[in-house]
Amino acid sequence: MGYQEFTIEGRNPVIEAFRAGRTIDKIFILDGCQDGPIMTIKREAKKQNTLMKFVTKERLDQMSESGKHQGVIAYAAAYEYAQVEDILKAAQEKGEPPFLFLLDNIEDPHNLGAMIRTANLAGAHGVIIPKNRAAGLTAVVAKTSAGALNYTPVAKVTNLSKTIEDLKKEGIWFVCADMDGTRMYDLDLKGPIGIVIGSEGEGVGRLVKEKCDFVAAIPMKGNIDSLNASVAAGVLAYEIVRQRSM
Amino acid sequence: MGYQEFTIEGRNPVIEAFRAGRTIDKIFILDGCQDGPIMTIKREAKKQNTLMKFVTKERLDQMSESGKHQGVIAYAAAYEYAQVEDILKAAQEKGEPPFLFLLDNIEDPHNLGAMIRTANLAGAHGVIIPKNRAAGLTAVVAKTSAGALNYTPVAKVTNLSKTIEDLKKEGIWFVCADMDGTRMYDLDLKGPIGIVIGSEGEGVGRLVKEKCDFVAAIPMKGNIDSLNASVAAGVLAYEIVRQRSM
Repeated sequence: MGYQEFTIEGRNPVIEAFRAGRTIDKIFILDGCQDGPIMTIKREAKKQNTLMKFVTKERLDQMSESGKHQGVIAYAAAYEYAQVEDILKAAQEKGEPPFLFLLDNIEDPHNLGAMIRTANLAGAHGVIIPKNRAAGLTAVVAKTSAGALNYTPVAKVTNLSKTIEDLKKEGIWFVCADMDGTRMYDLDLKGPIGIVIGSEGEGVGRLVKEKCDFVAAIPMKGNIDSLNASVAAGVLAYEIVRQRSM
Repeated sequence: MGYQEFTIEGRNPVIEAFRAGRTIDKIFILDGCQDGPIMTIKREAKKQNTLMKFVTKERLDQMSESGKHQGVIAYAAAYEYAQVEDILKAAQEKGEPPFLFLLDNIEDPHNLGAMIRTANLAGAHGVIIPKNRAAGLTAVVAKTSAGALNYTPVAKVTNLSKTIEDLKKEGIWFVCADMDGTRMYDLDLKGPIGIVIGSEGEGVGRLVKEKCDFVAAIPMKGNIDSLNASVAAGVLAYEIVRQRSM
């Protein structure tokens, strides 16, 4: 388990990494280089919004570990995802009722990182994210998680509502945050629980929300609509921490 | 009160704005322009980390409101700061015990914006920031505050510990968040209160911390050091919301 960054050097290896759908955070390309494979790499990088830096041959030589960069070095993220079962087992081993974070389509890597950080400190046993439409575990996520990505397991699932359904059979309750819910202080959140947090623009998806057992409202006293998604996740998670500690 | 963005057009007006210490978010400069005043503007912009964009004359003509841009248009932020007294008056008018956010040297504009957003939704009456070493109220802060900057008054003070001392005479209690404090659930946070939040790297400054009446600990169950600063502010603020609503 854990998060690592590593380099991919050379034209074909980098092209293959893109085609395999690997998350590439940053690419260093020899300045002025215009041939076919490099143009292919630039096109793929543009398509995936990968940061490109154009540097001198000396710089690439310095960075290279293999000595065979052929004008291109990519920085990729490697993270070994956990299985949902591993997360449940971690809770069992600690003798605690499971406490999960389910993050529905969080696209902003800073928010995703901050939430994994919060999950770690609030004592959650793991984080579950859907395979599609969510931010990958890039260097930005790792950095904003402040190291939490090395401790808190993250599982990727194909279908979040299906996963919720399966976990309900294991006796876990699900709560999502939404303004039209019950005041969170009035809910009993002590048992085995998964909190479901949606993206800032769209909130929790309808299908996912329908699967939740409770909708918890964070009291809103001001003039604007909603808290920052990672602040909302923190406030709801810590209400669970408080109830569990009473 | 409120936040506005406006443009400054022309060489001398832009140079003067920099010299007056005004917060400039972004500068559009005629591409290829190299004369003396433009070089001065580029130097100032670099010094203050202002985003520079080099554009065509047609683009500048389009953006210009005065028609006299002379190759440079700056976007500046205008925010009318409140006085600390205005914030106390707002609490009094609502018939509520004062609830203040004091932000000690928050340098990251995203965190500052998120905290102003949280202050608004938690029902705080205002935010106090120190004049020096803090992020200014730039477009990024306005945007991440999600509109809260238009509702929640922000006061800027010369010396935060002096302001705390003065406000204590008005019967306000101050609580800062730190790991070595009392568990926040065990503190009585119902009365007139100011929460003091420090920057992520350094926390609350020593002099400021010494003035606080309580040190509140947010329970940390994980493997890493601390929550994101704006998440911590949210969790502590909502413990106050909870206690006040009981």
